[in-house]
Amino acid sequence: MSKGIHTRERIIERSADLFNSRGYDGCSMHDIMKATGLKKGGIYNHFKNKDEIALEAFDYNLHKMISRFRIRLDKDKTAKEKLLSVIEVMGSLANDDILFGGCPIFNTAIKSAPTHPGLRARAKSAMNMLVTYVEIKIKEGINNKEFNPDLNPNKLANMVIMTLEGAVVMSRIYDNSQPANTAISYIKDYLNDKVYRH
Amino acid sequence: MSKGIHTRERIIERSADLFNSRGYDGCSMHDIMKATGLKKGGIYNHFKNKDEIALEAFDYNLHKMISRFRIRLDKDKTAKEKLLSVIEVMGSLANDDILFGGCPIFNTAIKSAPTHPGLRARAKSAMNMLVTYVEIKIKEGINNKEFNPDLNPNKLANMVIMTLEGAVVMSRIYDNSQPANTAISYIKDYLNDKVYRH
Repeated sequence: MSKGIHTRERIIERSADLFNSRGYDGCSMHDIMKATGLKKGGIYNHFKNKDEIALEAFDYNLHKMISRFRIRLDKDKTAKEKLLSVIEVMGSLANDDILFGGCPIFNTAIKSAPTHPGLRARAKSAMNMLVTYVEIKIKEGINNKEFNPDLNPNKLANMVIMTLEGAVVMSRIYDNSQPANTAISYIKDYLNDKVYRH
Repeated sequence: MSKGIHTRERIIERSADLFNSRGYDGCSMHDIMKATGLKKGGIYNHFKNKDEIALEAFDYNLHKMISRFRIRLDKDKTAKEKLLSVIEVMGSLANDDILFGGCPIFNTAIKSAPTHPGLRARAKSAMNMLVTYVEIKIKEGINNKEFNPDLNPNKLANMVIMTLEGAVVMSRIYDNSQPANTAISYIKDYLNDKVYRH
């Protein structure tokens, strides 16, 4: 790998944690210089401006999160297993040292979107992707008779995701994984009661 | 009211929306000057720094939210009515022109806390207050036999609040009150199924 590409990747990697935990406005070029050990010129050699770094940092964090899902989901066979994996991986973002700061989609949507429409659009489209994935798994579960036929896949998918997102933020407020664990256990009970065919 | 007090209140009132929608780092002194129509000196006559304005703006937003709850809750008699009012008022923060930007507790906890420990502490204590209020109402409902005796009031209170908080953020991501309405209807079904004694 050439030194230039290596430096570019280091800038993205090091600023990704900063943007995820502090948001766009809470992360200055000075913070990025400090985290990368580079001078301003060294950063501007690779990026036009902070916006460009923030967008690539978001993609980097999203990719990291998708990889977390993929590792779990690749082992799953049934729709039920896949749904449970999504729930557990999302809940685990409450105390995750790999994705420092929690779910990058929710974080970016809340922290960075008000002042940065480019990030807002990207967060919204990633959220769509996540909800749609869960919705498809619910439909698969209905079609192969694992799940009850009278579910509303879109509403249920939204409900699962937004409950877990709220729980992950709550866990970060209290610096304690209990709220995320509570959400996971409530959702599992709900699935047992209302979703799985027994 | 003296002109000095009036100006101080105007600064808090006008910056409260800014802090709630953009977070501490997304709201500069320049933004506050623009929103209040005051010069920097006119603001520093009343406040030591941006931190002091941000803390008072948080209290102002929190008070506005508490008033919203109080107007509804004052009319309620039973624990069931009070629980439903909390759920509906919280859900209504998804598209609220009075509290522009959504729930100030969640917003502050996510947007401002990473770079501002004072705001973090205040958001955490307000969240505690909200969860504790719901927990007390659940206990009242158990004691007066409106609710089932086998509930875990603390877990249920956390679950209701974090689900609604997640849904309010989701509604803001999509700029659509559907996710908040979905959460309200799921929670009501859950209460009917598991919480109320019939």
